[in-house]
Amino acid sequence: MRAMSAKSLLASAPHVVNIGLRGFADELAARGVPVAHVDWRPPAAGRERIADVLSWLARHERKITGANKEGLRRMLAADPVLVDVIPAGEAMPELARQVLLHAGPPIEWARMCGPMQGAVAGGIVFEGWAPDLAAAARLAASGAIRFQPNHSLGAVGPMTGITTRSMPVMVVENRAEGIGAGNRSYCMINEGLGKVMRFGANDAEVLARIAWLRDEFGPLLGAALRAAGGLELAPLISRGLAMGDEMHQRNVACSALTLRALSPQMAKCAGSAGALSKALAFIAGNEQFFLNIGMAMGKSIMDPVRGIEGCSLVAAMCRNGTDFGIRLSGTGDAWFTAPVEMPQGLYFPGYGEKDANPDMGDSAIMESIGLGAFAMAAAPAVMGFVGAGRASDALAFTRAMGEITLAKNPKWIIPMLDGQGVPAGIDVRKVAETGIQPAINTGIAHRKPGVGQVGAGVARAPLACFDQALVIFAASLGFHG
Amino acid sequence: MRAMSAKSLLASAPHVVNIGLRGFADELAARGVPVAHVDWRPPAAGRERIADVLSWLARHERKITGANKEGLRRMLAADPVLVDVIPAGEAMPELARQVLLHAGPPIEWARMCGPMQGAVAGGIVFEGWAPDLAAAARLAASGAIRFQPNHSLGAVGPMTGITTRSMPVMVVENRAEGIGAGNRSYCMINEGLGKVMRFGANDAEVLARIAWLRDEFGPLLGAALRAAGGLELAPLISRGLAMGDEMHQRNVACSALTLRALSPQMAKCAGSAGALSKALAFIAGNEQFFLNIGMAMGKSIMDPVRGIEGCSLVAAMCRNGTDFGIRLSGTGDAWFTAPVEMPQGLYFPGYGEKDANPDMGDSAIMESIGLGAFAMAAAPAVMGFVGAGRASDALAFTRAMGEITLAKNPKWIIPMLDGQGVPAGIDVRKVAETGIQPAINTGIAHRKPGVGQVGAGVARAPLACFDQALVIFAASLGFHG
Repeated sequence: MRAMSAKSLLASAPHVVNIGLRGFADELAARGVPVAHVDWRPPAAGRERIADVLSWLARHERKITGANKEGLRRMLAADPVLVDVIPAGEAMPELARQVLLHAGPPIEWARMCGPMQGAVAGGIVFEGWAPDLAAAARLAASGAIRFQPNHSLGAVGPMTGITTRSMPVMVVENRAEGIGAGNRSYCMINEGLGKVMRFGANDAEVLARIAWLRDEFGPLLGAALRAAGGLELAPLISRGLAMGDEMHQRNVACSALTLRALSPQMAKCAGSAGALSKALAFIAGNEQFFLNIGMAMGKSIMDPVRGIEGCSLVAAMCRNGTDFGIRLSGTGDAWFTAPVEMPQGLYFPGYGEKDANPDMGDSAIMESIGLGAFAMAAAPAVMGFVGAGRASDALAFTRAMGEITLAKNPKWIIPMLDGQGVPAGIDVRKVAETGIQPAINTGIAHRKPGVGQVGAGVARAPLACFDQALVIFAASLGFHG
Repeated sequence: MRAMSAKSLLASAPHVVNIGLRGFADELAARGVPVAHVDWRPPAAGRERIADVLSWLARHERKITGANKEGLRRMLAADPVLVDVIPAGEAMPELARQVLLHAGPPIEWARMCGPMQGAVAGGIVFEGWAPDLAAAARLAASGAIRFQPNHSLGAVGPMTGITTRSMPVMVVENRAEGIGAGNRSYCMINEGLGKVMRFGANDAEVLARIAWLRDEFGPLLGAALRAAGGLELAPLISRGLAMGDEMHQRNVACSALTLRALSPQMAKCAGSAGALSKALAFIAGNEQFFLNIGMAMGKSIMDPVRGIEGCSLVAAMCRNGTDFGIRLSGTGDAWFTAPVEMPQGLYFPGYGEKDANPDMGDSAIMESIGLGAFAMAAAPAVMGFVGAGRASDALAFTRAMGEITLAKNPKWIIPMLDGQGVPAGIDVRKVAETGIQPAINTGIAHRKPGVGQVGAGVARAPLACFDQALVIFAASLGFHG
């Protein structure tokens, strides 16, 4: 804590006294408001063991700084390109019969929340491993199905995130040179809004739509992508940020720009005018179509950041509806988990908090790369879901996330912030030290299987994940406290 | 002028003393900045005759207020729908052989600027009235061609705005009930960027593109619109304002949303996959595609506002590259003109101010309805063309235009202004009184025929138009000063 008496503060007669968040003071100063900044916060928000670990880590500052620099370099050098759509089993040969991928950190059937159990049952019926949903649930409970996180095979999935081997996944290739170059990531095609499997719905209509994605839409989209030579995603995100998207809760612009980019090739590759018209209308009718593309992109950006010794960057955040989990670059494949929190937000008519499932999905990969709630300032319209819905509150979200990140991404700027980049590279030390929980824009699923989406809002990553990760990170550098 | 001494100002120790623009003070106050507002400006910016007219008009305040209320009602109740694409000669039967429509107020060949002469010659060759550009220019100079403003026949056109009878025009129908209901307005399809007729280019490539628009693209777009039952434009603009468009210099979002809305029907109506792919790629490749739709929309919104006795609203602003012209609701079809000003902006590499033609086009209809520079706060990215390019400067543009308008359009809100509507309804009295010239976002044409666009920036409507209009408006109410 910097010593500064009340008297000396008054003597300098500032118009604003800012305590704690440096970013807020900088912004006021940039707007010509005289400001005195007091650089104080309670050490690690009063959590004394964490404070001890942080001061031990301070002795290894040079090593960590170097490792983080390399992590940031890989993150900011990423060149993700959407290149194809192929069956999940072809993308991930490990995804065999009776293997099923889900969102979030590892979880067994008994601990899965309602919507995830519903989606699992739907996925089993979709693959023909059971004749109906009841039989599918029994099969899942029997132990005959092997459950794995999407993240374990290079994939991601929104909400329940169920991925089975015949589902069509979009392929994003990271064309950056150097370590991790050419790595590929996968995500199922977004099914649309309302009653869909990612929100736990699983009836015949839901399965028929996925079958159409597998048999008709996916192959057409894949053919168009191959004919177009792929779709470069980093510039698309840049456009989207100037068009009100934060690419998690709002993908209006990026979805429309994707349609714009691919429709000429889709016209050439389609089997018939009717099939083409239906495919175009499907993209046109779903303003979240881009989300799954963005997620595969996020995974392809962050995977090369994993496994750097001494790097304190968060490599992934995800939730399975029961647990929230994070991975750090410097601690390998370990998941650090804690009970997931409830999102705060708005509900569709007829629904309320009592219907809501806790936070769920791999989509927090968007926040892991500086988008979603981290880029809220680009998407003030999203604030309609949160609190008083003021544009200034959107700026505050981005500002606060700047406190727990190491960089601003110069490729992804926010016009309303005069060209400042999105806050990128979450440092576990900064989260633990400030107690600022990463914010995550999210949809809200009904807690029962089979219903679907009931709202949207903002969730927070539980601090306990970061505290655990910090300790194990320190241990990786020799800490024995 | 409100009396307020320097001493009393200092005694109240405000943090900001705001002189003149009330909107600026209100905004500071809303952000919690203590502010003292001094409601003073030099009467009519020192133009004494104008001050006399303004005080005479103050005696007719009740009548004018009532008329303006009706004008605003018509403006804000408009329900513009893009319904079809048809040949200009079918839309406007008056557009016979050897009749040619141009942008701006009336002008004869000899006074036309270079790019407009170039476009006229191109239009004459396109119609087959002359075998080549030189012969076309001789024909135009001979007096055999009749020149009329687009505005005289319910049309508008960007930049040179040349419209001839076989060109395909988009049709916008205003479906609002009441006076003026069902009125239709027209605008040629946007040709794309660079070397195009609206910027004065006229070679074989330019004419071939317009022929393709006439023979293939226009009929396909028209068929898709009829099959779709039209495209509602007011909600589209609302979306665009939340996506960084101001619909004059930036139409990225509205162009993509138009493609999104129409591509499924285009797929059904196209004659072949190749023709469809070319048409989709044409829209996808032109981020200003929507501008011409927006202009036809603007005309359809403002035409019913014309001819209301005692109404001081500006019904149209436009420029022909030589003169700037405005029309008022209360003064019928009269044009009030003044020499057009030079835009301030940025130039494409290799060009500069010496190459620039003065401000041109009917596209100022966008500002007449509260978009373009009036909605700059929605499109901070446009500020890259103007001055220091700061987002706060974009807010200042919208704020200043709020000083010369009578309403905020509740349908067209700007998220970054916490849901405040765009400033709508320019009152000639407010322009004359404040001396604030309406700002207009615009492209910049090369001053020579045949070259095309060389830059983009912001122009200002000359005050002299408004001064003249004010006097004639007062005369319409009995002023004999």
